[in-house]
Amino acid sequence: MEGIVVKGIQKNFGKKTVLQDVDLQIKPGKIYGLLGRNGAGKSTLLSIIANRIFPNMGTITLDGQTVFENDKALGQMYLMSERNLYSKSSKLKHLLGTTELLYGNFDYEYAYQLAEKFSLDLNQKFGKLSTGYRSIFKLIVSLCVPAKYILLDEPVLGLDANHRELFYREMVDNYVKTGKTFVISTHLIEEITNSLEHIFIIKNGQIIIDGDVEDVLNKAYLVSGPAKEVAQYTAGLNVIGQEKLGNIQGDYVFGKLDSERVLPDTVTVEKPNLQKLFINLTNTKEENK
Amino acid sequence: MEGIVVKGIQKNFGKKTVLQDVDLQIKPGKIYGLLGRNGAGKSTLLSIIANRIFPNMGTITLDGQTVFENDKALGQMYLMSERNLYSKSSKLKHLLGTTELLYGNFDYEYAYQLAEKFSLDLNQKFGKLSTGYRSIFKLIVSLCVPAKYILLDEPVLGLDANHRELFYREMVDNYVKTGKTFVISTHLIEEITNSLEHIFIIKNGQIIIDGDVEDVLNKAYLVSGPAKEVAQYTAGLNVIGQEKLGNIQGDYVFGKLDSERVLPDTVTVEKPNLQKLFINLTNTKEENK
Repeated sequence: MEGIVVKGIQKNFGKKTVLQDVDLQIKPGKIYGLLGRNGAGKSTLLSIIANRIFPNMGTITLDGQTVFENDKALGQMYLMSERNLYSKSSKLKHLLGTTELLYGNFDYEYAYQLAEKFSLDLNQKFGKLSTGYRSIFKLIVSLCVPAKYILLDEPVLGLDANHRELFYREMVDNYVKTGKTFVISTHLIEEITNSLEHIFIIKNGQIIIDGDVEDVLNKAYLVSGPAKEVAQYTAGLNVIGQEKLGNIQGDYVFGKLDSERVLPDTVTVEKPNLQKLFINLTNTKEENK
Repeated sequence: MEGIVVKGIQKNFGKKTVLQDVDLQIKPGKIYGLLGRNGAGKSTLLSIIANRIFPNMGTITLDGQTVFENDKALGQMYLMSERNLYSKSSKLKHLLGTTELLYGNFDYEYAYQLAEKFSLDLNQKFGKLSTGYRSIFKLIVSLCVPAKYILLDEPVLGLDANHRELFYREMVDNYVKTGKTFVISTHLIEEITNSLEHIFIIKNGQIIIDGDVEDVLNKAYLVSGPAKEVAQYTAGLNVIGQEKLGNIQGDYVFGKLDSERVLPDTVTVEKPNLQKLFINLTNTKEENK
């Protein structure tokens, strides 16, 4: 099978199971979103795919070959991790060289162009950078390594709005030019939705949604109006969340509406965006109070 | 004068001037936003207000008293900083006690309630937390200290969408109940706009906007339509940014439109949101290319 295939992954930290029965496929030439709450297991999953940590059960293959201790396969994947693995006393321009030693063929010209666009001085030491600029440096490296599969864990952490827009543009531009595959884990769902083709939503260590963005959004509805009429209309449907304001109620439905039911004049049906859908799919009971 | 008064602040790091001629007033009982690009000087300004670092010129007073070496004044301010100042090997519940030693009267009951809402186990060590949960712990402390002025530097760094919504609700709720003053520095402008009353925008170390959110937004316009008609309509006005898509042009105007000019049928005038306005006010020339 082409691409990265994740099969039956389980991971425990001590007594806690952080990933369970995770199956998914990352096909070449797409932009994927890996979405989940704080603590859902996103970073652990990305680290397992990139062979940085090992699962208790399950396998990762790339184009049918196991990734475990397979340098050729691993050389095709690059993980930008949330952790800062660089030496704090190293100058940024020297760190680019270190990346080339590990991955080969680093695109210095593009890196220098990006540094200028993001107003990043490559003569600085990594340890002197703010959170935002640490992310920017790691992003630049991710866009310039020759790997085919680029895994980005929280790429826009600490970036201002202008820099986030710039990054999304550069990533899509890079994707169109190179046909690389990107897997992005992010908490800023609304602003990245248009750049994503396919999403995985992970909740408590399990994949609960795996589909093209368009297909997923097509199944989501927000039904709102007077509480009684809304409740009648959504009875028996898959209501995943609810908002209330006085007597007005909004029910989030995921799945199908019942085409036999007549929509009362006082009730409206809208399409929620991906962030609203995500919040409702992943909220805990405590938070709904 | 009541509240915190920042007067004539200048700060240099080596040869670089990071803050220049900064004057502003933080009045009691309001929620302020301090907005700026990566590297604009926000964190430096908050650290100077909280007396963590010292300016090269200028003064900070609280209710007319200088803040410098003034324990009583400093006890009324709390800065949640982006840096992690806690010992990594300390358990969270013990860190709450440390805060009480410094600030007195810590609201433990509220802290335990918040920890439950955010699904944070206070028996963990600080060093074991992810970026998101480090922010959550620091937020909880900020909401439970008895200080009157709460300065929050990047409070939602790494928080998922549900946790961000929860924090905004808790902060506004806390504000209504206690009448405390909040100053929030954040890059997620769009989602916090409704919680803010007054904003400061800082660019290259200088305050360029200081006003109530409503007044600032009232001065912002997006004029769009065929390039030629738009250019004619906005000629001589304060155009701060431009978007182009083929022959269609959008000009962001900040200030006043000319009421004498007739708006052609093909041209529309809309109100941009605060994030779009911010991006246009603070973009560099390179980014507009």
